Amino acid sequence: MALQKNPSEKYTIGIDYGSLSARGVLMRVSDGAAVASCVYEYPHAVLTEALPCGRAFPSDWALQVPADYKNALGFLIPELIKESGIEPGQVTGLGLDATSTTMLPTTAEGLPLCELPRYASEPHAYIKMWKHHGAARQAERIQRLAEEEKAPWLSQFGGYISAEHYLPKAAQIADEAPELFESCGRLIEVGDWLVWQLTGQDCRGYCAAAFKTYYSLEKGDVDAAFLEKVSAPLAKLSEKLPERVVMVGDRAGRLSAGGARLTGLLEGTPVSAAAVDAHVTAIGSKTTEAGAVLLIIGTSTCVIMQGSEYREVHGLNGVVPDGITSGMNAYEGGQAAVGDLFAWFCKNMVPQSYFEKAAERGMDIQQYLTLLAAEKRPGESGLVALDWINGVRSVLMDFELSALICGMTLETKPEDIYRALIEATAFGAWKIVKAIMDAGVRVEKIYASGGIPLKNKLLMQIYADVFNMDIHVIEESYSASLGSAILGLAASEEGGGFENVAALCEGYRRKAGLKYSPNPENVPIYRELYDIYSRLYEAYGRENDLMKRLRSLNKRGVL
Amino acid sequence: MALQKNPSEKYTIGIDYGSLSARGVLMRVSDGAAVASCVYEYPHAVLTEALPCGRAFPSDWALQVPADYKNALGFLIPELIKESGIEPGQVTGLGLDATSTTMLPTTAEGLPLCELPRYASEPHAYIKMWKHHGAARQAERIQRLAEEEKAPWLSQFGGYISAEHYLPKAAQIADEAPELFESCGRLIEVGDWLVWQLTGQDCRGYCAAAFKTYYSLEKGDVDAAFLEKVSAPLAKLSEKLPERVVMVGDRAGRLSAGGARLTGLLEGTPVSAAAVDAHVTAIGSKTTEAGAVLLIIGTSTCVIMQGSEYREVHGLNGVVPDGITSGMNAYEGGQAAVGDLFAWFCKNMVPQSYFEKAAERGMDIQQYLTLLAAEKRPGESGLVALDWINGVRSVLMDFELSALICGMTLETKPEDIYRALIEATAFGAWKIVKAIMDAGVRVEKIYASGGIPLKNKLLMQIYADVFNMDIHVIEESYSASLGSAILGLAASEEGGGFENVAALCEGYRRKAGLKYSPNPENVPIYRELYDIYSRLYEAYGRENDLMKRLRSLNKRGVL
Repeated sequence: MALQKNPSEKYTIGIDYGSLSARGVLMRVSDGAAVASCVYEYPHAVLTEALPCGRAFPSDWALQVPADYKNALGFLIPELIKESGIEPGQVTGLGLDATSTTMLPTTAEGLPLCELPRYASEPHAYIKMWKHHGAARQAERIQRLAEEEKAPWLSQFGGYISAEHYLPKAAQIADEAPELFESCGRLIEVGDWLVWQLTGQDCRGYCAAAFKTYYSLEKGDVDAAFLEKVSAPLAKLSEKLPERVVMVGDRAGRLSAGGARLTGLLEGTPVSAAAVDAHVTAIGSKTTEAGAVLLIIGTSTCVIMQGSEYREVHGLNGVVPDGITSGMNAYEGGQAAVGDLFAWFCKNMVPQSYFEKAAERGMDIQQYLTLLAAEKRPGESGLVALDWINGVRSVLMDFELSALICGMTLETKPEDIYRALIEATAFGAWKIVKAIMDAGVRVEKIYASGGIPLKNKLLMQIYADVFNMDIHVIEESYSASLGSAILGLAASEEGGGFENVAALCEGYRRKAGLKYSPNPENVPIYRELYDIYSRLYEAYGRENDLMKRLRSLNKRGVL
Repeated sequence: MALQKNPSEKYTIGIDYGSLSARGVLMRVSDGAAVASCVYEYPHAVLTEALPCGRAFPSDWALQVPADYKNALGFLIPELIKESGIEPGQVTGLGLDATSTTMLPTTAEGLPLCELPRYASEPHAYIKMWKHHGAARQAERIQRLAEEEKAPWLSQFGGYISAEHYLPKAAQIADEAPELFESCGRLIEVGDWLVWQLTGQDCRGYCAAAFKTYYSLEKGDVDAAFLEKVSAPLAKLSEKLPERVVMVGDRAGRLSAGGARLTGLLEGTPVSAAAVDAHVTAIGSKTTEAGAVLLIIGTSTCVIMQGSEYREVHGLNGVVPDGITSGMNAYEGGQAAVGDLFAWFCKNMVPQSYFEKAAERGMDIQQYLTLLAAEKRPGESGLVALDWINGVRSVLMDFELSALICGMTLETKPEDIYRALIEATAFGAWKIVKAIMDAGVRVEKIYASGGIPLKNKLLMQIYADVFNMDIHVIEESYSASLGSAILGLAASEEGGGFENVAALCEGYRRKAGLKYSPNPENVPIYRELYDIYSRLYEAYGRENDLMKRLRSLNKRGVL
């Protein structure tokens, strides 16, 4: 739909790089509206078994093809301009965000190594996605060493090294492909690489650098002496990282001639530093005020909050000063599977009669299970579950843990288990928020965004009952892309007048959706169920090693 | 099929009263073969919600109609005679067994109270089946009192009063229908009632009297002073029980004129005392030697063994001297759900694609799941389950416990869970056998009978691996009915020459089926998995109260 022509109207563009696709939006600066949006699905999606050439790799890897990311820019931006009918010159800024740590090795000039014939069949030359779990052993090694050396940054990141973060992935390459590690000029976040492709500026976005590489404004990167102990080649890691670090919303550079050719925008258009998708969602949702917790509930859940207080929270993914908005401390936590848990259940554990009855009512299976589950009272099923089907991100940060369902009788029906799984994700989310509160951070308000909060009223009511707090649903559909568009605005000439990103957000309306308030009848029942959940959480997460023993039997079986 | 006429050939008849039907067999005395068999399904099956007249009762009740039991005699025996073409005079003895405690109130003359117009709409006037769970509160009260009073019989029956036994059910009637309790002349096992109908002899079979009513040869019944403390009217309970107790295989009486009319057999035909179905199965399977454990694996599992040693085993349903064979001690234990657990899973948790693929191969769903599960190595799924979907009979004797599955990941498939459930039932069975062994009873040999051992090779192999012992499958299809036919023989003129039932069995061939031997590669993996199972068993069964708390939330929800 072409917009009414108003050549003085200004726009910015935000591109959000997700796991399977990138979404671009065109934001009108005057009111923050997403006036156009489009999606580009990565042709190679996620490589989980083999490279395009057929070369196989282990099952816990997750790779991607960098050309897919770059081609997204070349498709999305011209498409947004064409669709909206505006002039390229009306676009005054561009921002982008990506999943993280999603990283790739390039030459010193920024050419992805996998595009060189000699590395085309080398899995380590491709993008390692955030959910690549091949670096578990390296994460353990770094963890052990950081504890031994009492590394000062460890507690800032919850006391745990995630295998999804940057250093384990870099160490895996150094361990397993030392020649490639040696010869790569850059080993960088894909978001930073894209900004480099657009602007010619070889720099790092602070958001990912801080949250995923443990970079600090005072102390810089993890020091080379430590890294050398992890693995000798890592001593040179700093040479493979750009020197310049750019804060969230600051300008990384301006569109180069090449970037202008790729996108169809004017050369010189300001481009913001890349940021992490979840963090940018808080900007696009306009939930950047101090004390606001945002639950981004999708296949997994990200918990993002900003607080006036800086507190190190054990088991949280991290706290970073100025991590999203200057002057505030950004907190990140998460649950490794939420939508994925429900999808697993529906795919593997639901009989045909349910699908048939759902179809009769014109519902999808989750709508129908939700309908049935909503007829039950809290506690009626006598079930409690641990939602650990994909391991635990926060606050146990342990991917060897697994799911548990307790309390089945001969009367237990699929909808009972479905409801217990929803409740378990609510308990898991509350564990994270409670850990932040218990550390002394004031939590004032709970927001929820993502597809699930918009679709599933029962789930949101259960979250409100479990939290015993109001939950405000964000109605915005493209929060991450819009967040990047706001960062594009912050980097533009127009953005200079604002103190920080939060101040810039204040000018725009929050697209608030339904508010869910706790049901006083349910609160005490959920308090009791949460206590039972917590008993299981402590028992399996901290006190006993039964899940690890099961996992090790599993591995013995597979070998 | 009519048999070749040989008028000098002798036969006996055995009737096995199960939960939904009675099966009769005609056994040839010369070789013990079941030469004819037929089934009578109770027209009223199990009443679970309301009486035939529409009067409703609570959901944990399970009632039956006595006429169904009596009519089974009138159908089955003439049918066996007709089918085989023998003369009624060739039948030299008759035996029967029934589930227990399955009991009913009658007049002093043996007329079921529910057949009197004034009680036709009184639920307490009907048969209370073994699985009637309406007497849970009474069982708790008797348990508490027996502990307080240090009742000497308590330890003989594992230290727990089961709500499925006789006294709680009697106490429930005294509590809830005092007038009916007062006015009933007899409150007896349905098996004893049937023998009474056949012979006019009002007596009790020792097997049920000992195992389910705690009758002892030396001390008689639980004393009236104790019963009075349970409930004042129970002081008169002994008046409602026949005085004469008849040992297993002894003659209760001879067919009366009425019994002859009902069955078509000759008046005066000897009739054995009634016995309990599971115990009789050990006779029909010819597994009555000392040290032989018989697992009767069906919807639930009964564990029956005979030992030279008398040992009281905590949590076992009971040990009874001469309980099956004179001179030996009979042990009984059990698992509350085995086939029921698999059926629950297949009904509620298996997606359509599995049913379709099963149908393509001409398999039923359990055959297909077994096929897939058999491709996995032990431990490969990383799962362990507690098989407590219907509570726990032995050795925890706690029906408030519930099932648990631990270790699910996003890769977990239905066949993984199915296999984990099979393994859990094997661990549960081993817990019982191990408790008997640990008490000092020599266990020499493990037999398995029932439909599941004949059908499911994977299951039997897993049991052998878990037990680390050979498991011998009994190929006999009608073991319980045959066992009763052997009791009929024991009660006949021909039976008098044998020392005991075991000696009588020795004359007959055991129909041995496959033997499963432990796979040495699997044994250590199952030792580790059993250890994990045991950790969960102790945690949920003894150490924590989480399942009880869940159950109580459930009850609160339902009210």
